[in-house]
Amino acid sequence: MDFSIPEETQVMLKRVRKLMDDEVLPVEREYLGKNFLDALPALNRVRQKVRDAGLWLPQIPRQYGGVGLGFMEYAMTCEQLARSPFGNYCFNAQAPDAGNMEILIEFGSEEQKEQWLKPLTSGAIRSCFSMTEPGRAGSNPVHMDTVAVREGDEFVINGHKWFTTSADGAAFVILMAVTNPDAAPHQRASQIIVPTNSPGFERVRNISCMGHAGHDWDSHSEIRYHDVRVPVSNLLGEEGSGFSIAQARLGPGRIHHCMRWIGIAERSFELMCQRAVSRDLAPDDPLANRQTVQNWIAESRAAIDAARFLVLHAAWKIDKVGAKNARVEISSIKFYVARIMMQVVDRAIQTHGALGITDDTVLSTFYRNERGSRIYDGPDEVHRGVVARQVLKEYQL
Amino acid sequence: MDFSIPEETQVMLKRVRKLMDDEVLPVEREYLGKNFLDALPALNRVRQKVRDAGLWLPQIPRQYGGVGLGFMEYAMTCEQLARSPFGNYCFNAQAPDAGNMEILIEFGSEEQKEQWLKPLTSGAIRSCFSMTEPGRAGSNPVHMDTVAVREGDEFVINGHKWFTTSADGAAFVILMAVTNPDAAPHQRASQIIVPTNSPGFERVRNISCMGHAGHDWDSHSEIRYHDVRVPVSNLLGEEGSGFSIAQARLGPGRIHHCMRWIGIAERSFELMCQRAVSRDLAPDDPLANRQTVQNWIAESRAAIDAARFLVLHAAWKIDKVGAKNARVEISSIKFYVARIMMQVVDRAIQTHGALGITDDTVLSTFYRNERGSRIYDGPDEVHRGVVARQVLKEYQL
Amino acid sequence: MDFSIPEETQVMLKRVRKLMDDEVLPVEREYLGKNFLDALPALNRVRQKVRDAGLWLPQIPRQYGGVGLGFMEYAMTCEQLARSPFGNYCFNAQAPDAGNMEILIEFGSEEQKEQWLKPLTSGAIRSCFSMTEPGRAGSNPVHMDTVAVREGDEFVINGHKWFTTSADGAAFVILMAVTNPDAAPHQRASQIIVPTNSPGFERVRNISCMGHAGHDWDSHSEIRYHDVRVPVSNLLGEEGSGFSIAQARLGPGRIHHCMRWIGIAERSFELMCQRAVSRDLAPDDPLANRQTVQNWIAESRAAIDAARFLVLHAAWKIDKVGAKNARVEISSIKFYVARIMMQVVDRAIQTHGALGITDDTVLSTFYRNERGSRIYDGPDEVHRGVVARQVLKEYQL
Amino acid sequence: MDFSIPEETQVMLKRVRKLMDDEVLPVEREYLGKNFLDALPALNRVRQKVRDAGLWLPQIPRQYGGVGLGFMEYAMTCEQLARSPFGNYCFNAQAPDAGNMEILIEFGSEEQKEQWLKPLTSGAIRSCFSMTEPGRAGSNPVHMDTVAVREGDEFVINGHKWFTTSADGAAFVILMAVTNPDAAPHQRASQIIVPTNSPGFERVRNISCMGHAGHDWDSHSEIRYHDVRVPVSNLLGEEGSGFSIAQARLGPGRIHHCMRWIGIAERSFELMCQRAVSRDLAPDDPLANRQTVQNWIAESRAAIDAARFLVLHAAWKIDKVGAKNARVEISSIKFYVARIMMQVVDRAIQTHGALGITDDTVLSTFYRNERGSRIYDGPDEVHRGVVARQVLKEYQL
Repeated sequence: MDFSIPEETQVMLKRVRKLMDDEVLPVEREYLGKNFLDALPALNRVRQKVRDAGLWLPQIPRQYGGVGLGFMEYAMTCEQLARSPFGNYCFNAQAPDAGNMEILIEFGSEEQKEQWLKPLTSGAIRSCFSMTEPGRAGSNPVHMDTVAVREGDEFVINGHKWFTTSADGAAFVILMAVTNPDAAPHQRASQIIVPTNSPGFERVRNISCMGHAGHDWDSHSEIRYHDVRVPVSNLLGEEGSGFSIAQARLGPGRIHHCMRWIGIAERSFELMCQRAVSRDLAPDDPLANRQTVQNWIAESRAAIDAARFLVLHAAWKIDKVGAKNARVEISSIKFYVARIMMQVVDRAIQTHGALGITDDTVLSTFYRNERGSRIYDGPDEVHRGVVARQVLKEYQL
Repeated sequence: MDFSIPEETQVMLKRVRKLMDDEVLPVEREYLGKNFLDALPALNRVRQKVRDAGLWLPQIPRQYGGVGLGFMEYAMTCEQLARSPFGNYCFNAQAPDAGNMEILIEFGSEEQKEQWLKPLTSGAIRSCFSMTEPGRAGSNPVHMDTVAVREGDEFVINGHKWFTTSADGAAFVILMAVTNPDAAPHQRASQIIVPTNSPGFERVRNISCMGHAGHDWDSHSEIRYHDVRVPVSNLLGEEGSGFSIAQARLGPGRIHHCMRWIGIAERSFELMCQRAVSRDLAPDDPLANRQTVQNWIAESRAAIDAARFLVLHAAWKIDKVGAKNARVEISSIKFYVARIMMQVVDRAIQTHGALGITDDTVLSTFYRNERGSRIYDGPDEVHRGVVARQVLKEYQL
Repeated sequence: MDFSIPEETQVMLKRVRKLMDDEVLPVEREYLGKNFLDALPALNRVRQKVRDAGLWLPQIPRQYGGVGLGFMEYAMTCEQLARSPFGNYCFNAQAPDAGNMEILIEFGSEEQKEQWLKPLTSGAIRSCFSMTEPGRAGSNPVHMDTVAVREGDEFVINGHKWFTTSADGAAFVILMAVTNPDAAPHQRASQIIVPTNSPGFERVRNISCMGHAGHDWDSHSEIRYHDVRVPVSNLLGEEGSGFSIAQARLGPGRIHHCMRWIGIAERSFELMCQRAVSRDLAPDDPLANRQTVQNWIAESRAAIDAARFLVLHAAWKIDKVGAKNARVEISSIKFYVARIMMQVVDRAIQTHGALGITDDTVLSTFYRNERGSRIYDGPDEVHRGVVARQVLKEYQL
Repeated sequence: MDFSIPEETQVMLKRVRKLMDDEVLPVEREYLGKNFLDALPALNRVRQKVRDAGLWLPQIPRQYGGVGLGFMEYAMTCEQLARSPFGNYCFNAQAPDAGNMEILIEFGSEEQKEQWLKPLTSGAIRSCFSMTEPGRAGSNPVHMDTVAVREGDEFVINGHKWFTTSADGAAFVILMAVTNPDAAPHQRASQIIVPTNSPGFERVRNISCMGHAGHDWDSHSEIRYHDVRVPVSNLLGEEGSGFSIAQARLGPGRIHHCMRWIGIAERSFELMCQRAVSRDLAPDDPLANRQTVQNWIAESRAAIDAARFLVLHAAWKIDKVGAKNARVEISSIKFYVARIMMQVVDRAIQTHGALGITDDTVLSTFYRNERGSRIYDGPDEVHRGVVARQVLKEYQL
């Protein structure tokens, strides 16, 4: 076993970190907890600096204008980008666009790439991914009620979705809809590109979450599809392959998510340590002297490091044997890392006292935004079941 | 030991609960996560219904227009009011006004009562309490930098406060300021009534907390006092008695806080149970069948009940032997109950899945608003130290 | 609600506590972790002192030679007796004899009382209760394989039991066996008195638990019944009533168990505090100065107190409305209190360092002996399910 | 980062595991919870099979008769050996002999090696290490009262030690004693070889721990040194180097300990899974169907894996940059891994129900024996402090 990180990766990570510190954190300080649209001009200036530094689209192959980082390299990059809620956006590596780019690269036709991928990678437009339905358990992606019925050269789409992240301001949706209701459960749905200016596409509302409806990229929408018509050529991959395309994204996507959580935990840890040494309870008696604070720091240090190795090992295993054979690992990191992140955020808040619940630090944003981490992509409870059933197969009598 | 609740108290609690269910919860449903000012007209209509029902000011003696509930009775009422974030407001029993009324009743002169208490109890005005300072550890209320210097018949006040809850829209502040800098530490500060329209009173901002600056009653302000002048007759009680007045409020106030937390936990518990029986994972297979959800329900049921007894016992003990002799109990419930509340809220959110982080239920409001419970009034860490030191006195060799 | 304890109960509890301190703890110090038979002479001397003090059989009505304490009084006494593993034994209030006495008093015939209850209450003999079977989940007491077939005036018994506590040295067993295999599940079993010197009664072994097979009262046996014959007059109550007799014992028995756990927690807490003030890490720098130790003390103080109220409330409710209507409470205290006890024991051990794992204190005995508390009488997992299902009934749509 | 394990290491680990399964586990089954001396003949037969397989002394260089495994290889081997409490003993890799062999190899003179190392590696004798003192906090190894005063060619030793593991039956002690009381704190003590048959060497008792005084290798002794005289040539290394020799062992020793804990956790995990699939709660309804058990399995799987990576990374870092620069890692794994081990053991016991507290499985032995893991080698509380202070150095203003 060799835990070393290649020299050139270290150099790249340091460059990313420096951009984060120098450019992204000042924007964060100014726009934290404010309307995302107000922050956009500043974010666009940072985006240009990222392009100038040659770090735009770190996860995307060079032929599509990206840096072309390897899987492990990009995983480590995700940790750095996640140190600020604005990080991924500045590198055009934000969800859900990053995932949509991957789908278009792998499954898109040349025309689809020309029409949708190109402006996405350039940053000219944004996109979203529309799967979750309010009446259906998110833990069971096979069941959905939204349908796309073929009529001639068109799909006619009807349905009701919610938690379509970043739909506000997006140019198109990648929609999961049932096209083959009589097929086997995993072969019923397809992924279809739907322009958001299509007649019948209704963005009902940005769902207020944790006190905020949000704006633009920083939002989750409820959407209704009323007889929306799109050409059949908007189909991604083959008919009925919607679920398998989604599955293909799942393993790598999980790694990116979990490394993002590590980054959030690490940033919170830094803030906790900075507070501990700088806040005096009495002259020359900083918080850092308190054993309880020391306990939090030590437990957090160990837990974050353990979590990071668990994620990087899962990434390494996906690389070696494929996501299918790494199911235990991919589900384990979901619940294990999300909890550790939330614990570190919580300790960091407590260390800050009243300041910790204000928007004068990023901690309360993490506290609110990341509570969903234990729910989306299948709640922790589902993933624990996946791990247990997979493990117990080896013990069946 | 007799755990029974007197018949007439039970009747009163049921009436309160019915008003909460029939009048307050519909307002909550409509205005949750929105600007407090938008909710005000509806809240004022509910306030009238509360007056009509004879439940206005449940905690205040009859001579001042209240219901005149006993200490234990009001403690149990607090649980009911807290089932909604709007509950206390509708009964004019909201912090910080409720505490200020108690101070005015106990320590106010007749003129102060006439001028400030009367409109407060009638609901014509609101007030706030200004103690915490940004540069000072909240856990040590003895140290403060705000000063009120006597010049003739006036105090001249200078200082910097924050987390002055509900200052936005308040008619007056009860201010803690140092009047006797050379006295013993606990006799340095006084409580002084400061009208918010006094020249030099600057409400710098409503502090953005958990993504919200808030409005009106629903806010926490940063305030600067620049040579603010008030007549000496605005002094509450004797000069130098600020800390002892604050202490006098502390025991009973803690009980009210903790019973409020019990109410929040109980409401969250109800929502969790309702969701468990109503959300199907598959036809006729509700969440309630899942052992993990059952574990949450059982653990929450036991924990809330245990916590409630701990609080009611502390209240009973304050009643019997006074707050000074119930220090272990008063500090114990602070950290014990806050944690249980937050755990129940967290489990209820998880049971709701994505819905749990939206503002379509009250849970995400509890999650955000109540995180401060482990911090304000002295962080948990401080109260654990109080309990330990008090307990260990009996073991000293 | 009135948390006061009657003066005369307080006096009685103090007398019990003094006997524990003066007589039982010295025996504990000498015989902890040793063969129970070696301790017997000393224990018998203490038993005489308990008789002399008029505290023998605290839980038994006066007409049978006991003190005749009320239910709540005895519950509080259990806490005191449990401060030492030898406490209950010295007062002839030890399991399983105490439960068997209650069965004989409530369901025994006059002859059965004469023959078995009298020597039991006098302390001349011991008894045991034989229910659990190795092949059957203890959480489902309805299913058992041991049968008692009626042949003329006799029952012929065959079966296999284990965890028959204190069978080694007992004069008789109260046996649960199926007598009516075709009846409804809860009416199949009967309770039958079986003398241990009956032909065919085989005590296979004392089961080694946590490194100890144990001796005499301090043991759990595996037992085989090979065509054991007893007269039909040894039947307790009616045929088929075995389960309902067991149920009748369950509510009160749970209270006694849980108050015993409170007593163990309280004793461990005392040891933790004593150690904290007496162990110096450096000159004049005792463990008590460490915030981590303070946290343990504060958390333990709050948790034990909360747990005690939960148990006493359950006892009060059983008294008021019967065990059937207190099912949520009776199951809640099982898992809630056992965990708190084990946490306090664990913290006390950690506070003692290496000394904590030796038999120089009682802590390691508690650690080993009480691990079973989360398993016997239905594991925690089962009781959480009971609570959840009972609670959710009120929410069914 | 490369998580792969070299092919030849995998082959070796499989051979070790097979020996454990085929030879050691049957002995465990027979002698668990019994007198160690009774197990010795069987253990000696296994030892011969280990020699025959060429796996004797896996951690020792070939020139001294061992297998000569590398540091990482041996770390992984420790996990396998620890699956049974008898594992290390069968491979002559048991504490404290393994550590003593390392000291003799690194610091022993040729004569010392000839006289003491040779019979130790051959298995002809056993040894022990005598450092901890009853009156001194184990967390502070610098302070000790045992002295070795030089008189001519001899040291005259007086002192009081306890928790001298395996002293019963050992041929010699490596003793930590103060030889230079006036030197700097870390240069006061020396390590000295003391034959246990020296006049004045008194083994006071085997300390009863968790109900067992134990025998032979399976014991912890209290020892008094009354004017014990040994030749000056029994000094290990230089005078005053006792602490630095102990430190040199600490990093690698910690890795071995932690990998042992991983092995214990992994064995407990296997037993939990086997029980889950084999124990039916009702026909065809095994424990494995219960979500709570699934949660335990999933959480344990993730936690053990995360812990193992944390330990192996610490080992890798010691290899790369030395133990001094890996202090955070070496202290982190102490508290992090011990807790996870104990949690997995606890869940495995709970899954076994009553069987889990018997000696019919190894779980109750783990539960008792390994509670000390959070105490010895510095309690968790001390190690958390080490990590925090080290981390905070980077944040000092």
